[in-house]
Amino acid sequence: MSFTLVLGGARSGKSRHAEALVARHPAPWAYIATAEGWDDEMRARIAEHRARRDGRWETLDAPLGLPAALAGIGTRPALVDCLTLWLTNLMLGEHDTEAATEALEDALAARGAPTVLVANEVGLGIVPENALARRFRDAAGVLNQRLASRAAHVHFIAAGLPLVLKGEA
Amino acid sequence: MSFTLVLGGARSGKSRHAEALVARHPAPWAYIATAEGWDDEMRARIAEHRARRDGRWETLDAPLGLPAALAGIGTRPALVDCLTLWLTNLMLGEHDTEAATEALEDALAARGAPTVLVANEVGLGIVPENALARRFRDAAGVLNQRLASRAAHVHFIAAGLPLVLKGEA
Amino acid sequence: MSFTLVLGGARSGKSRHAEALVARHPAPWAYIATAEGWDDEMRARIAEHRARRDGRWETLDAPLGLPAALAGIGTRPALVDCLTLWLTNLMLGEHDTEAATEALEDALAARGAPTVLVANEVGLGIVPENALARRFRDAAGVLNQRLASRAAHVHFIAAGLPLVLKGEA
Repeated sequence: MSFTLVLGGARSGKSRHAEALVARHPAPWAYIATAEGWDDEMRARIAEHRARRDGRWETLDAPLGLPAALAGIGTRPALVDCLTLWLTNLMLGEHDTEAATEALEDALAARGAPTVLVANEVGLGIVPENALARRFRDAAGVLNQRLASRAAHVHFIAAGLPLVLKGEA
Repeated sequence: MSFTLVLGGARSGKSRHAEALVARHPAPWAYIATAEGWDDEMRARIAEHRARRDGRWETLDAPLGLPAALAGIGTRPALVDCLTLWLTNLMLGEHDTEAATEALEDALAARGAPTVLVANEVGLGIVPENALARRFRDAAGVLNQRLASRAAHVHFIAAGLPLVLKGEA
Repeated sequence: MSFTLVLGGARSGKSRHAEALVARHPAPWAYIATAEGWDDEMRARIAEHRARRDGRWETLDAPLGLPAALAGIGTRPALVDCLTLWLTNLMLGEHDTEAATEALEDALAARGAPTVLVANEVGLGIVPENALARRFRDAAGVLNQRLASRAAHVHFIAAGLPLVLKGEA
């Protein structure tokens, strides 16, 4: 089934926009979280996102096993938040990102329900001095392009407002 | 009265675009500057912006007291350049940014003349290594979202060209 | 003759989009490369881009002499990839960027065939701590604005998808 990709910068309102897209479909909804709470800053952010979602959302943690999580939720509409943290986790754990991306594409193609994927756009600043940051920035851009080419809808969010890059609003 | 938010990156032409929006209304116009000239680089930039504006612009400096400045200019059309430096000044001075944002929203709601606010989009690069930079980036994104939700018009500027995110061009 | 400016972040798909724009015109096409292979990372990227282009593309290296290269290719449709590396090379070599920009504008105005210019948008992240990076970011933004104002078409690319900022798609 077709899916939607929601792109945006940090604190652009992309998660909130993506939640609203999923909530157009009947509940219950699956929220597949890829964040890992390895420091207070990240734990605070996870808690804040979680507090915003009511009981119609079921949260699943999938820091690495995103394709399996998507395969396991049946026909519930789902939000994946976010692809960029998933990629970070794969790269930090030295996993095979190409194999993981293919598994994700297969899981998305096999889905029988709406899916909205959130991803960060990280390539619009100055070239990072750190080589790992450059490698990550490249990988994130390539992943976004790849999923955008398969998505039915792609929205770019700035200041909470969507620009439609592909499909309809 | 309704206001316009002009978002963009560094050297995207957002100030020039915002000036043109204000200049659609009858002069004199108020230019509310939030920049502080604490180094040569910033002083040069302030001088360059100032040189571009002719005598129909009256410049007011409001590095912190932006809500009071807006309240004090009566019915002159106004340009605020920029919100992001105002937020920087608030954060560096350890002021209450939430109270300041509410005061700004109240001042905007009470205005009886057109207002154009310029803000920087800073969240589209790689995650900064510096914790203060991350905190600032988050606060800037949240402020932009908040004002965008109340603005009648939101324009995103790239290479001097506007994309309309909300309202008309 | 009129030209097209393709703007985007790192790994946004801007080169591929620009190649497709040039390939709407009859071959052979000129690919004017401004990258210099001074490290393995850059050499790998150059090789990857080169592998994507078939024999209908003739590659010319012009790390500094971009205006002369454009003047020398006659009426072949051309892709310049990219302006931002050209600017980097000029700045690192302490060349006169203003004179070079004027020479580029003259060469573009004198062209009798379609030209597509690729440029990076680098101003949408946090302010760089490094003064040289800030100076470069400013110069890149100013160059983008200047060429955008003369271009017939300006496209902003995110995740491989174009947003039209000026002209048609």
